[in-house]
Amino acid sequence: MDFSFTMALPVLRRTPSVVRDLLADLPASWTGAVEGPNTWSPFDVVGHLIHGERTDWMPRVEHLLRHGDAVPFAPFQREAMFTASKGKSLSELLETFADLRRDSLERLSALQLSAADLERTGRHPEFGIVTLRQLLSTWVAHDLGHIGQIARVMARQYAEAVGPWRAYLSMLSTYSLKT
Amino acid sequence: MDFSFTMALPVLRRTPSVVRDLLADLPASWTGAVEGPNTWSPFDVVGHLIHGERTDWMPRVEHLLRHGDAVPFAPFQREAMFTASKGKSLSELLETFADLRRDSLERLSALQLSAADLERTGRHPEFGIVTLRQLLSTWVAHDLGHIGQIARVMARQYAEAVGPWRAYLSMLSTYSLKT
Repeated sequence: MDFSFTMALPVLRRTPSVVRDLLADLPASWTGAVEGPNTWSPFDVVGHLIHGERTDWMPRVEHLLRHGDAVPFAPFQREAMFTASKGKSLSELLETFADLRRDSLERLSALQLSAADLERTGRHPEFGIVTLRQLLSTWVAHDLGHIGQIARVMARQYAEAVGPWRAYLSMLSTYSLKT
Repeated sequence: MDFSFTMALPVLRRTPSVVRDLLADLPASWTGAVEGPNTWSPFDVVGHLIHGERTDWMPRVEHLLRHGDAVPFAPFQREAMFTASKGKSLSELLETFADLRRDSLERLSALQLSAADLERTGRHPEFGIVTLRQLLSTWVAHDLGHIGQIARVMARQYAEAVGPWRAYLSMLSTYSLKT
């Protein structure tokens, strides 16, 4: 599937409510659960999504439109939330994420980007030349990836409890732990 | 994590709204998207969840309480939705799933099960002896697994569109296509 605003915007718009529906008011044993050492809990993922709104998606769109591929994006700190989320409640984080996403989409809409703009290029600090189309597609896939991750981390808390049904629940298998 | 009603019920209760938030009113290219031949679209998954409410979860709980491990459960038809969903709209399926889940949880609550009841046994047509605890744990993990699947199927539609970012989006890799 190719990127289009018609397809992408409804997904970006609903991520905060999907994540809130998944997590709000759940016991901390769910929201703080992890898959193993050095893996992220649902709480950590929400912090990571917040950091993406603050420093990755719209900041990079605006950077690309301003500098083209002359100046690389600032590197993204994918684990910044371990510091930034400290002392915050999950409901606080969920609200912050929803506010930031609303603001991001307002900024995106204000740019009135055309299909031709999607071919404009920027410079990723590691990958080199990337297009605006790729950056916006990544925003969508990244949202969905982390929604999937939250569901997977939670499902795996019952990996033992399901007993023999584990054979039918492929998401629980350690085989896919690295995915 | 061990099964408990306190932990499990809030998850079972919210699945219909999570799935609705993820899918309602999205273009059909999202909701009908698949990962490849013989894989399920988000639309198919909702039909599968409906069939679970009708023939798997509470019917098996009730069967187990009635027959213990003397009579095996009827086998579950995991692909029944390919027939049953035909001609239905996604919004119709989402509403049906929400209604059925509400009804399932009312029936579960009416049983007033105790922690001791969780050790009662039934007979799975393939696995043999299983406990009520395992059956109820599987219900929760199955919900979460399919939420994760919907997000993954959607994310993978942008596997090409993200360009070099694919390297950072582990959910897009074919390596995990089987999970």
